[in-house]
Amino acid sequence: MNYFEEALKSHAKTKGKISVESKVKLENRDDLSIAYTPGVAEPCREIHKDISKVYEYTSKGNMVAVVSDGTAVLGLGNIGAAAAIPVMEGKAVLFKKFGNIDAIPICLDTTDKEEIIRTVKLLAPCFGGINLEDISSPKCFEIEKRLEEEMDIPVFHDDQHGTAIVVTAALINALKVVDKKLDEIKLVLNGPGAAGTAIIKMLLAAGVKNISVCDEFGILYQGRPEGMVEHKRELAVLTNKEQKKGTLSDAVKGADVFIGVSIGGALTKEMVKSMNQDAIVFAMANPNPEITYEDALEAGVRVMGTGRSDYPNQINNVLAFPGVFKGALQARARNITYDMKLAAAVAIAELVSEKELKPEYIIPSVFDERVVEHVAKKVAEAASYSCKGRFLFG
Amino acid sequence: MNYFEEALKSHAKTKGKISVESKVKLENRDDLSIAYTPGVAEPCREIHKDISKVYEYTSKGNMVAVVSDGTAVLGLGNIGAAAAIPVMEGKAVLFKKFGNIDAIPICLDTTDKEEIIRTVKLLAPCFGGINLEDISSPKCFEIEKRLEEEMDIPVFHDDQHGTAIVVTAALINALKVVDKKLDEIKLVLNGPGAAGTAIIKMLLAAGVKNISVCDEFGILYQGRPEGMVEHKRELAVLTNKEQKKGTLSDAVKGADVFIGVSIGGALTKEMVKSMNQDAIVFAMANPNPEITYEDALEAGVRVMGTGRSDYPNQINNVLAFPGVFKGALQARARNITYDMKLAAAVAIAELVSEKELKPEYIIPSVFDERVVEHVAKKVAEAASYSCKGRFLFG
Repeated sequence: MNYFEEALKSHAKTKGKISVESKVKLENRDDLSIAYTPGVAEPCREIHKDISKVYEYTSKGNMVAVVSDGTAVLGLGNIGAAAAIPVMEGKAVLFKKFGNIDAIPICLDTTDKEEIIRTVKLLAPCFGGINLEDISSPKCFEIEKRLEEEMDIPVFHDDQHGTAIVVTAALINALKVVDKKLDEIKLVLNGPGAAGTAIIKMLLAAGVKNISVCDEFGILYQGRPEGMVEHKRELAVLTNKEQKKGTLSDAVKGADVFIGVSIGGALTKEMVKSMNQDAIVFAMANPNPEITYEDALEAGVRVMGTGRSDYPNQINNVLAFPGVFKGALQARARNITYDMKLAAAVAIAELVSEKELKPEYIIPSVFDERVVEHVAKKVAEAASYSCKGRFLFG
Repeated sequence: MNYFEEALKSHAKTKGKISVESKVKLENRDDLSIAYTPGVAEPCREIHKDISKVYEYTSKGNMVAVVSDGTAVLGLGNIGAAAAIPVMEGKAVLFKKFGNIDAIPICLDTTDKEEIIRTVKLLAPCFGGINLEDISSPKCFEIEKRLEEEMDIPVFHDDQHGTAIVVTAALINALKVVDKKLDEIKLVLNGPGAAGTAIIKMLLAAGVKNISVCDEFGILYQGRPEGMVEHKRELAVLTNKEQKKGTLSDAVKGADVFIGVSIGGALTKEMVKSMNQDAIVFAMANPNPEITYEDALEAGVRVMGTGRSDYPNQINNVLAFPGVFKGALQARARNITYDMKLAAAVAIAELVSEKELKPEYIIPSVFDERVVEHVAKKVAEAASYSCKGRFLFG
């Protein structure tokens, strides 16, 4: 099937992918008088008296804004807010399908960091959560941080944390396959953009100790003269304890795990052969991974994951974000903490039983219906201990 | 039925009134690959190449933002953005029910005019039209004017123009009942707020010549020392040709038509008795009209309309806004011009046939299913002649 042709036909046929529907019936004057004037005045008055009632009488508690400025859309780059809409509508239908969450695309006609922050804050009343999507790095880091600090509802940049959660889940199970431990492995990540940075921070939080990060100038180390923008300076401090210098090829020698969120073909068979035995490779560049599935296995990789649905072990955000939001909304969490993200990763990982676990099955299918409820439950539980005293209401 | 109690129960039961649904199926990997990656990249690329395609491949063309800052909600006043949500969700379900239009509440956490303008402009990419709602006067005038000038999609402040259209429709038919002509009547409007001001401008555009406007200080005239904010100064120029001074009681003497968008009880039976014969009274204060239906008839009013559904001739915005937006969206009009608003009024009026027309039936029921299509058709036609050369695309 040619997905591009089919997508054009399908999008044109339905003129987009989302509709807004009424949850109440409107068949007669009584119905109107309850849903609208005069009856509607009563929930308005109740919310005016006690703003926490907004979760009781409106759709806010299950409504997420999928916010983008169109600057980093898929692999297409800065294509603008209007051209980003199909992706954001796609995200909205995934929210519905997998999380039964109401989500609406908000594509902003600005790429200015401060304007994005200000606008999202002004939109808060109607939304229970904010999903940031396809906003370019490095501004996405500050936008998320500022919104997290300044808003009362959870903010989640899925490109960062969705990916990080699913990678962590996959790594937990891959390490079981090869019988290695998180705190003993040597891990190399190639591509410290939005997703890469979040993956590193999450793996550090999960207990990985030995991480090297590579970009187009090679291994990150403190004081490196090339390309050290702010988040890379931070990563150079957090990783590469021995402050080694060199190329990606140097970095992967003896490594147990390679994680690629970079560009197709970045990892050669020779590099893989220089890795430790029972190598784990997550090659997530899309559509062409850092190394093909076939080449990876030929070069001796034991557990291989990609971003693609046509190979085993697809590392797909949709395993994380619906349950993460569902749990956060249920708990009415103010933030999505690392405790909650780690809980989500563990929840995803534990849905693959010891008996089922094998190199070609380390992570559940996106159509596994247990995923969303299990992740939501664990995230909500984690919210209750990690956010103590930080709930919005009561 | 106690609508307030029922409304609380109903709102709590469904937790608000709107949901976001998928228009496409997502049952297997192929579905995902068409609605989301990788297929979704293709409509993105097409829109990036030609931005007008956003109407072909996304929901924009049928998506309306119902925007409020919560400063003038129903009769409740400035209750804030969160407390306004039930009304905006109500509006959204009316859009769906009566116009099959997808509408989403956007309640802004600011009451600052410039911030509202800026934010709405930034939201434009995903929306085909903007319905402003329950924003306080006088800032609502400038917000609407600026957005109309600065945006490429239609902007409509329903509190102003929705009411004005339906009043004009009702007046057209009421004048047929009493066999008087628009350009010969003497008309008094009490309450020059957002709705009142729009009604006056629309009636002037429709051909009414003799209009007096009253507020709490009496008749508006140029140079009046009390309460002459900007829009009232403008109205004093547009109306009261003889620049008479006096009270409401003075104004209504000999008048053919009284239109109230003010406060309950403002019009006494004595005042009505001083009006011309075959008086027409539209007393639209809610829930208590300027004069009760019974008192008006006793005092000799021939045609009486109110804002209430429990009396004849309910003057209800829902007769106008769904069809107005539907027509404007279909025509892809850039603005909603007076030609389009007048076309909507005439369209509503002509759905009451000569044979059906009587003092108690001058305007169709809100449940009359012909209304939306007929209004939409006439508005779209008017768009094509009044907006010539002003279409957004092609």
